[in-house]
Amino acid sequence: MALITLLSDFGSASGYPAAMKGVILSLCPTAQIVDISHDVERHHIRAGAFLLWMVAPYFPEKTVHCAVVDPGVGTARRPIAIESGGQFLVGPDNGLLIPAAERLGRYSVFHITNEKYFCAPVSRTFHGRDIFAPVAAHIANGLSPRELGPLITDYIKLSLGEGVRRGRVLEGEIAYIDTFGNLITNIPGELLKEIAPGTALVVEVSRKVASARYASTYGEVEQGELIVTVGSHGQLEIATNLGSAAQRLRAHTGETVTITIAPPKK
Amino acid sequence: MALITLLSDFGSASGYPAAMKGVILSLCPTAQIVDISHDVERHHIRAGAFLLWMVAPYFPEKTVHCAVVDPGVGTARRPIAIESGGQFLVGPDNGLLIPAAERLGRYSVFHITNEKYFCAPVSRTFHGRDIFAPVAAHIANGLSPRELGPLITDYIKLSLGEGVRRGRVLEGEIAYIDTFGNLITNIPGELLKEIAPGTALVVEVSRKVASARYASTYGEVEQGELIVTVGSHGQLEIATNLGSAAQRLRAHTGETVTITIAPPKK
Amino acid sequence: MALITLLSDFGSASGYPAAMKGVILSLCPTAQIVDISHDVERHHIRAGAFLLWMVAPYFPEKTVHCAVVDPGVGTARRPIAIESGGQFLVGPDNGLLIPAAERLGRYSVFHITNEKYFCAPVSRTFHGRDIFAPVAAHIANGLSPRELGPLITDYIKLSLGEGVRRGRVLEGEIAYIDTFGNLITNIPGELLKEIAPGTALVVEVSRKVASARYASTYGEVEQGELIVTVGSHGQLEIATNLGSAAQRLRAHTGETVTITIAPPKK
Repeated sequence: MALITLLSDFGSASGYPAAMKGVILSLCPTAQIVDISHDVERHHIRAGAFLLWMVAPYFPEKTVHCAVVDPGVGTARRPIAIESGGQFLVGPDNGLLIPAAERLGRYSVFHITNEKYFCAPVSRTFHGRDIFAPVAAHIANGLSPRELGPLITDYIKLSLGEGVRRGRVLEGEIAYIDTFGNLITNIPGELLKEIAPGTALVVEVSRKVASARYASTYGEVEQGELIVTVGSHGQLEIATNLGSAAQRLRAHTGETVTITIAPPKK
Repeated sequence: MALITLLSDFGSASGYPAAMKGVILSLCPTAQIVDISHDVERHHIRAGAFLLWMVAPYFPEKTVHCAVVDPGVGTARRPIAIESGGQFLVGPDNGLLIPAAERLGRYSVFHITNEKYFCAPVSRTFHGRDIFAPVAAHIANGLSPRELGPLITDYIKLSLGEGVRRGRVLEGEIAYIDTFGNLITNIPGELLKEIAPGTALVVEVSRKVASARYASTYGEVEQGELIVTVGSHGQLEIATNLGSAAQRLRAHTGETVTITIAPPKK
Repeated sequence: MALITLLSDFGSASGYPAAMKGVILSLCPTAQIVDISHDVERHHIRAGAFLLWMVAPYFPEKTVHCAVVDPGVGTARRPIAIESGGQFLVGPDNGLLIPAAERLGRYSVFHITNEKYFCAPVSRTFHGRDIFAPVAAHIANGLSPRELGPLITDYIKLSLGEGVRRGRVLEGEIAYIDTFGNLITNIPGELLKEIAPGTALVVEVSRKVASARYASTYGEVEQGELIVTVGSHGQLEIATNLGSAAQRLRAHTGETVTITIAPPKK
């Protein structure tokens, strides 16, 4: 059973994802198609890269992820296909696919040049429909990425970064803000592992300082209290029980985060 | 053909529903997955329960409904699976599944304790992905809910209530406000059955009183006029032709509704 | 493999599309269902017609498009099914299906009268679930539209219009505004074909006049500059690189657009 995921900033109501699905199902009628999101913040490559990084490991082998957050469509930016850990990724060469590829395993990147697998004529503004969707369908049908074009190593790298800890201070940045206003950081949860639930913390996001508490789940604290927890993705997450941490701290993706563990009381 | 529906308050763009789908399709590659909604008002168990109640009867036998509106995730609240009228429901023990289960037929509730069917390790904040999705996939594959854990009777009950009529006065509450701003009440449509289209009514929602007309469809009245009609779900619905009744009456889910039939003119 | 698309103004989170899917999968368990959009502006038949016109050609033969933007539900407006270019369209007789039908090929329109294919009882307010979804499923199962009712020719016509060029002046209207705020016109792209990228243009939308540049892709101009380009649908599109043209020009669907080619400098 062929499985293809789609991720874009087209808007789920725009009709553009549907056009991609029509192309895919014309070439691979039995494909299962799963939408990861079509509402990535427009042209926000890092936010798209984070989502793909977050969900790709939960998909089975041979899944083809077709991702299009592509401010450079129609310019010289190259289309690429990646094989990693038994899964495939197809999209623009702008870093979008790289964090997921790294997480899935050792990976190979191919520059897609073989126009035989495109929808003709290729428009200048919608490679999602004319290049990425048909290429994803062909891979789902069993085509090896090797057939698409040459192996390259000069693709654009992108790292979501990794927060660090120095003594009582953890530093990183906001990788993603989810629907609930939870601030998902790039600080690995294990850096706080030895801390007991309830430990007092101080959170600083772009010059706003707030008290928080380490919690192992949202329900452990009073309503409205700020907590730091290890999210379902394994990263530290700043949240409030029944409220939006993003609104409360007026926080944005990409901003620096500092979490300080309060010294034990004497 | 295995059929699984998903309902949550995660936001369709959040990536969390996609992670659940990846887990489901890893275990049950041929599953058809249908999204009921991922935009239930956050933590609003009654609104989620209403949607599930509304759509479940339209699905075929053996459908597995996996629903996650779950403010208590990570606390002592239990995961449950229900068998009812040939369909299955999986989700938290907080009342969310009960109105749909009652509507589908006689039902049995099982406390999910058999960790063999979970994704390990189980996170503290995302049981949708780690417990409910894999359990739903196993049921879709043919597993009996009996294998999941003990039958229980002390699950949390939830009733959407049922409006009543006393003479010319009907009383109930707003069960749900749909995308059009239509106010869907918990008053059964048959309580107004003998009324002729065009009959004058008085509607009162949280101290705001307005004139309305009974209509058998939206198109029967002038633009902007307030109507009471029997919605597609069989409940009385307060709507305006081409406009939002919710906005006009500043109404919210859960508020009390009174509908009074005007006495016939002499 | 049966393939059914859905388009509506119900809102993707409303539960109504899910009820339609339940009906479809009860009758045709192997159907692939693709959402084109459920967030068409409420009751905006032309916007729905444009989306369907835009994406239908990308779907394979035998696809059944089930579209419901239906302000006249429950009135005398007829339900229709159309066969065109090997695909099928099902929905209300209000013009919604016609531009797509014309684009797909020569077409025949049938008045759906055979109640055998409806879900009983038919509600007055939700023909999407009770008439259009089951009829679409039956067609996907192989039923000929001829079995549904008589061939008719007095169906309601709708044209998205076609912009024209007189010398240096092109005139048309805004057919659709997409998620990015791009203004998609009904002026065919070929009317500007001989123009060189970078050519200066003057755009007028509902009395607001602005300078623009012809570009073959978004990335060719400075951030914020207004461009006219041939969109992925083949129509002229007014856009800004990284911004919303709709917001900048305060433009709305249906408004008149004039594009004037500046005379070459001497």
